[in-house]
Amino acid sequence: MTDSHAPLTDSPLDLAQGLIRCPSVTPHEGGALAYLAGILDQAGFVVERPVFSEPGTPDIENLYARIGHGPCLLFAGHTDVVPPGDAAAWRHDPFAGTVEGGELFGRGAVDMKGGIACMLAAVLAFLARRGPDFGGAIAFLITGDEEGPAVNGTVKLLDWARGRGERFTHCLLGEPTNPDTLGEMIKIGRRGSLTASLTVHGVQGHVAYPHRAENPIPGLLRLAQGLLAEPLDAGTAHFDASNLEFTTMDVGNPSTNVIPAEARATFNIRFNDLWTPETLAAELERRLAEAAGNRVRYSLDVRPTNSVAFLTAPDAFVEQVADAIEAETGRRPVLSTTGGTSDARFIKDACPVIEFGLVGQTMHQVDERVTVADLDRLTAIYERVLEAYFPLAPAT
Amino acid sequence: MTDSHAPLTDSPLDLAQGLIRCPSVTPHEGGALAYLAGILDQAGFVVERPVFSEPGTPDIENLYARIGHGPCLLFAGHTDVVPPGDAAAWRHDPFAGTVEGGELFGRGAVDMKGGIACMLAAVLAFLARRGPDFGGAIAFLITGDEEGPAVNGTVKLLDWARGRGERFTHCLLGEPTNPDTLGEMIKIGRRGSLTASLTVHGVQGHVAYPHRAENPIPGLLRLAQGLLAEPLDAGTAHFDASNLEFTTMDVGNPSTNVIPAEARATFNIRFNDLWTPETLAAELERRLAEAAGNRVRYSLDVRPTNSVAFLTAPDAFVEQVADAIEAETGRRPVLSTTGGTSDARFIKDACPVIEFGLVGQTMHQVDERVTVADLDRLTAIYERVLEAYFPLAPAT
Repeated sequence: MTDSHAPLTDSPLDLAQGLIRCPSVTPHEGGALAYLAGILDQAGFVVERPVFSEPGTPDIENLYARIGHGPCLLFAGHTDVVPPGDAAAWRHDPFAGTVEGGELFGRGAVDMKGGIACMLAAVLAFLARRGPDFGGAIAFLITGDEEGPAVNGTVKLLDWARGRGERFTHCLLGEPTNPDTLGEMIKIGRRGSLTASLTVHGVQGHVAYPHRAENPIPGLLRLAQGLLAEPLDAGTAHFDASNLEFTTMDVGNPSTNVIPAEARATFNIRFNDLWTPETLAAELERRLAEAAGNRVRYSLDVRPTNSVAFLTAPDAFVEQVADAIEAETGRRPVLSTTGGTSDARFIKDACPVIEFGLVGQTMHQVDERVTVADLDRLTAIYERVLEAYFPLAPAT
Repeated sequence: MTDSHAPLTDSPLDLAQGLIRCPSVTPHEGGALAYLAGILDQAGFVVERPVFSEPGTPDIENLYARIGHGPCLLFAGHTDVVPPGDAAAWRHDPFAGTVEGGELFGRGAVDMKGGIACMLAAVLAFLARRGPDFGGAIAFLITGDEEGPAVNGTVKLLDWARGRGERFTHCLLGEPTNPDTLGEMIKIGRRGSLTASLTVHGVQGHVAYPHRAENPIPGLLRLAQGLLAEPLDAGTAHFDASNLEFTTMDVGNPSTNVIPAEARATFNIRFNDLWTPETLAAELERRLAEAAGNRVRYSLDVRPTNSVAFLTAPDAFVEQVADAIEAETGRRPVLSTTGGTSDARFIKDACPVIEFGLVGQTMHQVDERVTVADLDRLTAIYERVLEAYFPLAPAT
């Protein structure tokens, strides 16, 4: 935990350590936003700390900071982290920020206090070099509720900013996007996610008299096969094929001589831009009706979702970021839409958003860590993005 | 509850009421065996009341009684009953033995205090008519543990009797064998029962990265289809086709974004005389291996069973019982092996056993009941069986 009078540093390692030392496990602020606020304030940003509430969820602290006027590049992220799990299993205290062998250990090292540290270091260096009149605006939109219910975080922070008249030109979200090596992958969109539960209705009875009962389990097998038989699609230019995974299948009948009355299954679909939740639900109903014929009685419960597939069409900004990555790492990043969801699904309604951050390999694991070299390289990449985004006015 | 000085009656209704008024819900004796013991003792039987124990199960009282010498006809049954459930839902107190509209109401009316009352009434009438030197022996083997774990009941009682040198020629078990009308069905065997659990092993992971996980649910679907695809057999002369029912299928994964590590299912097979538990287990393994190929990792756990298929080959005794039924009811009973298991599966190792009793329709239900007319008819049938089994010596 640190106070808001920390000396102004532009070392990404110092900043990452400062953040890791704040135990900001969702929903606790843990001092992390106060630490950022102190530094941004000293750097000339106007800093706000709105707290959002909702019945049934914990109150959440958030941070919004802005400097400058004109086209606004938004840096987005979260300071909350998942719990460390068994802290004794870690090589180093998960909240100590220990460096060993060129690696910084700690919960959030890559997801995503390390990423925030690099953004901040790059912006501080950029402002030191160019001064406050750099020809545009820079904003930070940082939530403390990304790893939790995500109710009192980015969604409400964007609403709040819109209400104040804040507008953004592009957003760079610093989630760890690289599977193995820094520079591999930019995310220019995300698949949508839809969850549904399927219940097959039968008639309970004794296993010795199956003709007097109606076992729902063979019906569930039939419907599940019907859902899985054909791929949903073959993928699109920027998206993998949509994919359906059964996550559970439950009957809960303890009696080995009783045919159960009901069988239930839940599945999740990660879907691409060929689908909306509505067209997908219709396709599910079509497949189930076909598989069921007149033989299986079932009901489908599709859960409401705000996670739709979206794509930030590759544009000049994407090129700038890719150029910056290639200049620093020597590799041209893949433009990807793979993986889970992120707050980008909310930000995309405010402005075009792309994601690029550290290497995600150790995220959410014991011994989460980042190389100091990667922190420096990512900072350099973000600096190049800033320079390209706010070019020096041509000499007059 | 009654004492052992009850007046000797040979009315099946009186006897059934006397038994129903003993609240002998498993494992409680409830006075039912004492009631029987008093009557059998007065009728000249030597009566024994062995109590059997086993760690982890309640002690159980049982009854064994015998009269006479020579070929022995054994009457078998149980006085314990399943709980009444919601007694308030009954038209009459389940332990009052109320008669209304020609029907006797009460828990055990058909399963099987009514059947025992008919056996007893028939034997008392037979002995009154023929005296103790009727040319053979009659025994009663009555347990208080048929509806429960069946550990301290018929199995141990048969062992105990064998140890004392008791031998039986034939057994008539008085379970309710008729689906709708008295006289429809004799059971001359029972199918075996085998229960097994199937576990499919996968690799847990995030639904957004299915290539890094291995979902066990499609594997379980595949194996289940492999087990169900072909009938086990087409039935035999005296048996229906063997039948497999899945009784449960469980994953228990609450997270809709996690691919689970394991999926489990349990199934029960009622099998005919084409199979032993061993040959059936081998067939299951064969089907699973074929369905799994190299693609599904699974384990099968077949539970040990003492329930094998058995058949009492139709012989002169079966004919005598069928003749007696036809004489009283006008219908020739079907010789069946359908339905659940019964203590006949244990008795068949001591002597040929067949089952014939009341109409089972209301057994285990609220308002279990029997018509007084059926009690009288079944008594008359058992009397005819006794007369045929122990014919009068030809006049010399």
